[in-house]
Amino acid sequence: MVRPVLTPMSPLVWGRGLSATRRAVDLVLDEFLNSKARSAADGGLPEEITQVLHEFVFAGGKRLRPLLCALGWHAAGGRGDIGPLIRTAASLEMFHAFALIHDDLMDRSATRRGRPTVHRALAARHRSSHGQDDGDHLGVSAAILVGDVALAWSDELLHTAGLRPSRLAAVLPVLDAMRTEVVYGQYLDLLATGKPTSETETPLAVIRHKTAKYTCERPLQIGATVAGAGSGLLAGLGAFAVPLGEAFQLRDDLLGVWGRPDQTGKPALDDMRAGKHTVLIALALKAADATQDRLLRTHYGDPHLGEGDAEAVRAVLKATGADLAVEHMIAERHEQAMTALGDLPVGADVREHLRQLADEAVWRTT
Amino acid sequence: MVRPVLTPMSPLVWGRGLSATRRAVDLVLDEFLNSKARSAADGGLPEEITQVLHEFVFAGGKRLRPLLCALGWHAAGGRGDIGPLIRTAASLEMFHAFALIHDDLMDRSATRRGRPTVHRALAARHRSSHGQDDGDHLGVSAAILVGDVALAWSDELLHTAGLRPSRLAAVLPVLDAMRTEVVYGQYLDLLATGKPTSETETPLAVIRHKTAKYTCERPLQIGATVAGAGSGLLAGLGAFAVPLGEAFQLRDDLLGVWGRPDQTGKPALDDMRAGKHTVLIALALKAADATQDRLLRTHYGDPHLGEGDAEAVRAVLKATGADLAVEHMIAERHEQAMTALGDLPVGADVREHLRQLADEAVWRTT
Repeated sequence: MVRPVLTPMSPLVWGRGLSATRRAVDLVLDEFLNSKARSAADGGLPEEITQVLHEFVFAGGKRLRPLLCALGWHAAGGRGDIGPLIRTAASLEMFHAFALIHDDLMDRSATRRGRPTVHRALAARHRSSHGQDDGDHLGVSAAILVGDVALAWSDELLHTAGLRPSRLAAVLPVLDAMRTEVVYGQYLDLLATGKPTSETETPLAVIRHKTAKYTCERPLQIGATVAGAGSGLLAGLGAFAVPLGEAFQLRDDLLGVWGRPDQTGKPALDDMRAGKHTVLIALALKAADATQDRLLRTHYGDPHLGEGDAEAVRAVLKATGADLAVEHMIAERHEQAMTALGDLPVGADVREHLRQLADEAVWRTT
Repeated sequence: MVRPVLTPMSPLVWGRGLSATRRAVDLVLDEFLNSKARSAADGGLPEEITQVLHEFVFAGGKRLRPLLCALGWHAAGGRGDIGPLIRTAASLEMFHAFALIHDDLMDRSATRRGRPTVHRALAARHRSSHGQDDGDHLGVSAAILVGDVALAWSDELLHTAGLRPSRLAAVLPVLDAMRTEVVYGQYLDLLATGKPTSETETPLAVIRHKTAKYTCERPLQIGATVAGAGSGLLAGLGAFAVPLGEAFQLRDDLLGVWGRPDQTGKPALDDMRAGKHTVLIALALKAADATQDRLLRTHYGDPHLGEGDAEAVRAVLKATGADLAVEHMIAERHEQAMTALGDLPVGADVREHLRQLADEAVWRTT
């Protein structure tokens, strides 16, 4: 297997077509949030909701879901006014803001995209007026609401996308499925976190729901549905997207342990401190001898884990071969995705875009 | 002003037509959640999400929003298959489950509808396996997700209501407005809670967004829109519903202080302990002398407030005339609603239903 050498922003994939999509999506998000901010100001309503959300949305993010949504549209032969598609893609990014804001709360994460998480930022904002404890609680509460409104606004973006009513009606069931899947995935993740075991079924189910379906399959299908795709193409896109999404998340798990914080934007110890039940740790626990098992159980999941012990954990993850096993799973899934891609009835340019996006998602370092 | 004597379940209003609506809505909710439970079981996904949500939805609740939705439909001359309307009404109740579950988290409420709140129930469920602190955090996290999924499922109920695509497209903007309003109302409430002042503008804005619009105006308008109402009727329904909703919430604030827990289903001290910035406390602070002011500021908002000090707070709320002033505001708004009702171009039976529902909402004891 030859790994292509890719920079994080390979000009080919993030090139003309897709970087234009990205800019167009960002423009929609910016205008939408600015208009909400104006309404709030006019109505004497708190402006920090839109401020915080705007800062969050524009602090970074790969815009992977909007890009996949656009590719799905192209795959289904979308043509004509691209406006409704772009707004639909923007609604997926707004939904993602909701998901991340609530996830960060549940994971008690302090930073995201190199900045304080929303609940931390809001706590800091209100600590001076409400005291430490109440400020923290207020930060959590306000972040729940900012997440809630991001979810509501993701719908509003879709509802006002300018889709024909019958097309909108076709998109909604896919969206409904996506939203149920992501909640179940997160719920499974929540219950498993802090109690990693050697079984890989749970982390694989989490990956399938939270990432494979939510991040890859559904955005592609939603874009394709906007362009009027039939069930055959939707199934084909799923067959490509699900293994790709699994590979993407398995890569994420590796980066959670070995990634460079300056590249990933999140602290290198978060996953280990939280005791995230990943496929990686499950495979390590399965292969560990008694000493290695003890070391993993002592340090993996320790909220105060330091860099020294983290290095010891990393060494065991390597010594047990868990890292290579995960790399193997990634390569396997990448190959499945490529096979499914070969079977997709799409034009050469779309196929090439999907192939490159897949390569980047799987072999990335950020 | 003559107050009609009404039992909590006056047979007239909750009589044939509306109690049938209520039963039909409950049937939809029950079937929907059971089908979600089956899907989860089939997919090896955690069953506690649907269990907890089912218990919550059927632990009680006035079903006020579904009933108003049905009345809005009748007001707009709805006829033919009532199925899509009932499912739309059920979606509002599911949305309400979302709002209450997240509100209870933010208010740190221990009970709702006479039972442990969702985050408390979930914390209790996981405390044995995760320990006290982690169990509590897991309870909060899981409750955020149960709320999130209730919001997503409220949409799914609407999307699968069987509305014609053009009718669904007409409902969505009203729904979008409602969801933004309720979040802003709750956000305002959150920022004001614990820091009551003598100004009534904030608590009135909270009431307008969280209750008047969310509980009354929008459900009526959504039902009317399902039946194809034009903008004139929608505005008329708003003119009736907004003062009614304000009166409803002002009554709620009084019940939060003087209500009987066995009738309201929530502890009598919660609002006072939280230091809820209500119109009631604002008016009391405005009229209080130095001693009364000191007493209110000492005890109102004390999380450990006992029954004895609560009685002293209640005495000041009465001595300052704040309770009567709020009763006056309720009566005033009730009258405004009645005037608007007189102007509504609706049939005599719908008018009578709306009048009686208004009476019950305003003069209730539960």
